Amino acid sequence: MPSYKLTYFPIRGRAEHLRVLFAYAKVDYVDNRIPKEEWEKLKPTTPFGQLPVLEIDGVQVEQSIALARHLAKQFGLDGKDDLERLQADVFVAHLEDLRASFTPLLKEQDPEKKKEILAKLQAEVFPSFFEKLEKRVAKNGFSAGKSILWSDIVLATFLEALIIKNVLGDDFATKYPSLIRVKDSVYNTPQVKAYLDKRPHTDI
Amino acid sequence: MPSYKLTYFPIRGRAEHLRVLFAYAKVDYVDNRIPKEEWEKLKPTTPFGQLPVLEIDGVQVEQSIALARHLAKQFGLDGKDDLERLQADVFVAHLEDLRASFTPLLKEQDPEKKKEILAKLQAEVFPSFFEKLEKRVAKNGFSAGKSILWSDIVLATFLEALIIKNVLGDDFATKYPSLIRVKDSVYNTPQVKAYLDKRPHTDI
Repeated sequence: MPSYKLTYFPIRGRAEHLRVLFAYAKVDYVDNRIPKEEWEKLKPTTPFGQLPVLEIDGVQVEQSIALARHLAKQFGLDGKDDLERLQADVFVAHLEDLRASFTPLLKEQDPEKKKEILAKLQAEVFPSFFEKLEKRVAKNGFSAGKSILWSDIVLATFLEALIIKNVLGDDFATKYPSLIRVKDSVYNTPQVKAYLDKRPHTDI
Repeated sequence: MPSYKLTYFPIRGRAEHLRVLFAYAKVDYVDNRIPKEEWEKLKPTTPFGQLPVLEIDGVQVEQSIALARHLAKQFGLDGKDDLERLQADVFVAHLEDLRASFTPLLKEQDPEKKKEILAKLQAEVFPSFFEKLEKRVAKNGFSAGKSILWSDIVLATFLEALIIKNVLGDDFATKYPSLIRVKDSVYNTPQVKAYLDKRPHTDI
């Protein structure tokens, strides 16, 4: 195994799926959490002026989803064949699309307008989106196949973030039981539980 | 080779990189361009209510970047090893991020506000973004390695779309010669030229 060092802010954010992937695969890495104040100094030393950055045997690489796909392949969590690999990629691409639909919400500063944007997402975007993912997961058991792949780990951390932000609604688990079951399957494995137990508490 | 049928609207849009990938790799496929009026009827028959959809031996799969990565692997255009594959993925992820930054521009209806948003993108986003990609390409020769990979084809179609929309500015080729060279390398291969010659003319 190469040496891995993951550099990111001390939050879950765009690195948590990588941390859970390392934990799930039981692969050692340095979890380098840097305070926000150090970012301006560090930024010019990163390949694209953004975090997370993963050092693979000392080589810095950015882009958290590309990194997750790469690690998944090294850890045997990318799918049993090219078509399963494709379906895992497709599933993650949908999650990324939904994440992108949050951008206007994150950019809006006015609390009332924030509420409006969120209500619109909840009414017009979430139901059809999660219904389609739920059907897919219910059919296969997991996001792309019959066992946990990296796409299930991305789903788990994605749902966790939305649950903590309290944006999914109280009936989410009733309406989308398969999605919650995947999240729990990831988070209830002993090695991920062990990581969660020692994970620093953060708001985001 | 499996049978491939690509269904999309009669525009370049989100399918052109797939069409150029097929052309570059000299792989046969059905280029199924459906009129917009047929979309409402077709939509419920697609896996996620969106196009493009690629049928691979009759199985429908969506998400155009995931599809391009899959085809690239089948065609031997995904990279010579896992690290080159990762760099190709990283490069495409950056292009997708820039594409996402266009969303407010596409959503805005007011022509004056559209101009303002575009001017802001051109002044604040493009220079640093393209400078970083230019450096990367200048160093390697291509987006991720020393020969054309799928990421170069995504770059080529991405730049073509921006050039046709006239948003890159007159000095783009002078400032970012390596990016233009990659685009030309892709578009000047005989098999891609042959495709371009018979491609239906469309505005977008």
